[in-house]
Amino acid sequence: MQISEIIDVTLAQIDNLDKASMASARDRQSTLTKPLGSLGKLEELSILLAGIFSNPMPKITKKTVILAAGDHGVVAEGVSAYPQEVTPQMVYNFLSGGAAINVLSKHAGADIIVLDAGVAADLPSHPLLRDVKIGRGTNNIAHGPAMTRDQAIQCLETGIQSSQEAIDNGSDLIACGDMGIGNTTPSSAITSVITNTDPYITTGRGTGVDDSGLEKKVDAIKRAVNINNPDKNNGLDILTKIGGFEIGVLAGAMLGAASRNRPVIIDGFISGAAALIAWTISPNSRNYFIAAHKSVEPGHMIGLRAMDLDPLLDMEMRLGEGTGAVLAMHIIEAAAKCLTDMATFAEAGVAGKSDSE
Amino acid sequence: MQISEIIDVTLAQIDNLDKASMASARDRQSTLTKPLGSLGKLEELSILLAGIFSNPMPKITKKTVILAAGDHGVVAEGVSAYPQEVTPQMVYNFLSGGAAINVLSKHAGADIIVLDAGVAADLPSHPLLRDVKIGRGTNNIAHGPAMTRDQAIQCLETGIQSSQEAIDNGSDLIACGDMGIGNTTPSSAITSVITNTDPYITTGRGTGVDDSGLEKKVDAIKRAVNINNPDKNNGLDILTKIGGFEIGVLAGAMLGAASRNRPVIIDGFISGAAALIAWTISPNSRNYFIAAHKSVEPGHMIGLRAMDLDPLLDMEMRLGEGTGAVLAMHIIEAAAKCLTDMATFAEAGVAGKSDSE
Repeated sequence: MQISEIIDVTLAQIDNLDKASMASARDRQSTLTKPLGSLGKLEELSILLAGIFSNPMPKITKKTVILAAGDHGVVAEGVSAYPQEVTPQMVYNFLSGGAAINVLSKHAGADIIVLDAGVAADLPSHPLLRDVKIGRGTNNIAHGPAMTRDQAIQCLETGIQSSQEAIDNGSDLIACGDMGIGNTTPSSAITSVITNTDPYITTGRGTGVDDSGLEKKVDAIKRAVNINNPDKNNGLDILTKIGGFEIGVLAGAMLGAASRNRPVIIDGFISGAAALIAWTISPNSRNYFIAAHKSVEPGHMIGLRAMDLDPLLDMEMRLGEGTGAVLAMHIIEAAAKCLTDMATFAEAGVAGKSDSE
Repeated sequence: MQISEIIDVTLAQIDNLDKASMASARDRQSTLTKPLGSLGKLEELSILLAGIFSNPMPKITKKTVILAAGDHGVVAEGVSAYPQEVTPQMVYNFLSGGAAINVLSKHAGADIIVLDAGVAADLPSHPLLRDVKIGRGTNNIAHGPAMTRDQAIQCLETGIQSSQEAIDNGSDLIACGDMGIGNTTPSSAITSVITNTDPYITTGRGTGVDDSGLEKKVDAIKRAVNINNPDKNNGLDILTKIGGFEIGVLAGAMLGAASRNRPVIIDGFISGAAALIAWTISPNSRNYFIAAHKSVEPGHMIGLRAMDLDPLLDMEMRLGEGTGAVLAMHIIEAAAKCLTDMATFAEAGVAGKSDSE
């Protein structure tokens, strides 16, 4: 695939997992002072981290949430329970520290980078906000493409640069989060196309539409897919036709993290749709994804299953912003620390399993 | 029930949850900058914490793991994959900081108190170790009662004092952990009796017995229940006849936390069996329990369901030591912080749900 120089170089840097580091980590797990396998998913996760970091003793020292915001022309179809002005209002809330993602990021010890990927309002300059605005909201996908191909490329490049820069500045763990009134609609369309699933199945109530809103939403998604006819094997085409600016930026951030051999945590349904686009563009990138949680949105598990990802948490959450991803950071760090910091049977002078059993 | 002065006073202090604080917390959740219910279990948990703390804005500032160790005469029946000397060896490992619980407690910012409730070996004095030894291992429950009634009372009193002291010293969140080779056997017997479930269903492989070990284990549990014939409605009788010293201490610690209006996190199968005993002694104590995770041990969910508890995590863990409980601390704190630290719609100037939907 040839998309742009930045994207092509990034895709070429996305490796397979390092099997040798994984084998070393697996061997070490069998020597640590616990019955083998008794730490369950923490053991599996530590081995995955070894493969991602290409290091049998992976260490996570700094964490960053990339929180991208954008608006969606499709809100004109009545697909959301909240008015579009909530997108910039919530961006202000992120900047003043009052949102759930602020509270949870502080609790997890993670930095937040807020990106204005495409909010349909002018936002003030603020030290925590990066103006990377690709457009003032997407076009209404029920009537035509969300954006131009050049804009879609710009989304991916912006995301790639944001995660690569965070990693180059010392972050070892990237979480993806979204804000954008109406963005479960393109996410459902993307999930429907890439997983070849009927929109009735991939579509949920988002922030809380009623039955009539849900019907309008499914109808809008069906029209968006029919009118635009995106190529299910072409992530860039899908992003262009039925995506969103923040979704494209997050897909880019995922590709950027994978290109730097660092894990990227998929949050909920919108991040999951971004992950599907990243995966369609670079199947190997999926090796670097860690699914944080099972969202209440029904399409989320459909997307995760398509990528063969198993979420760590099931907290019945559906907020986005990266809240689920940040909540999973503690567990991912715990997995790495158990691998690297526990004593071995030999170090601790603890006897192994009885021969008699 | 009249057991002993310390226990009777403690039981009398275990209140119902504070409904007024819960109602205030529920009201506040509906004003915070997120769609109502979008934080899922974190919202429910925050409301529970308000009820437990009797405070609409509960704060968790200090956390303690109570880690009780004991040995079990029933290991003579060949029920465990590891030899009994691993119990004191693992206690040394806890004291030198090399076990999974050390790594995870440090990661969670929790203190550890290690209690020698009944290890069948002499342990050295150490600043982190409390010698509260009630016996040098229990008697073989397949042949008769595990301990005397006085010893069972001593277990409960010791546990009550340990958690009450931790809370009086500022801890707001108590986790329970266990160490004891062979202790899935009494835990399975306890779960079987209290939930009226066949031992074949409540019994798993513990640290990893093979098929023949599993058969011996189920057989030992059946004999223990038949010979001792514990009264399923009498927690003290169950502890005396088919319990363990560390199990009794943990049951006491749970009662102590409940008596001080603070949450106690149930770890895995052994903590779950202790919780069943505490619940049988004081049905109200269950209001203060938070189930950390779904253990791989099949009996664990049977016990939790009996108490109508829903575990927060499913990490396929089966280590004990309090590892699952400590891993859940981050989530419990997150729930409290979202309730108390997020901005309201009014504070943040964010619009609510559209009238049009």
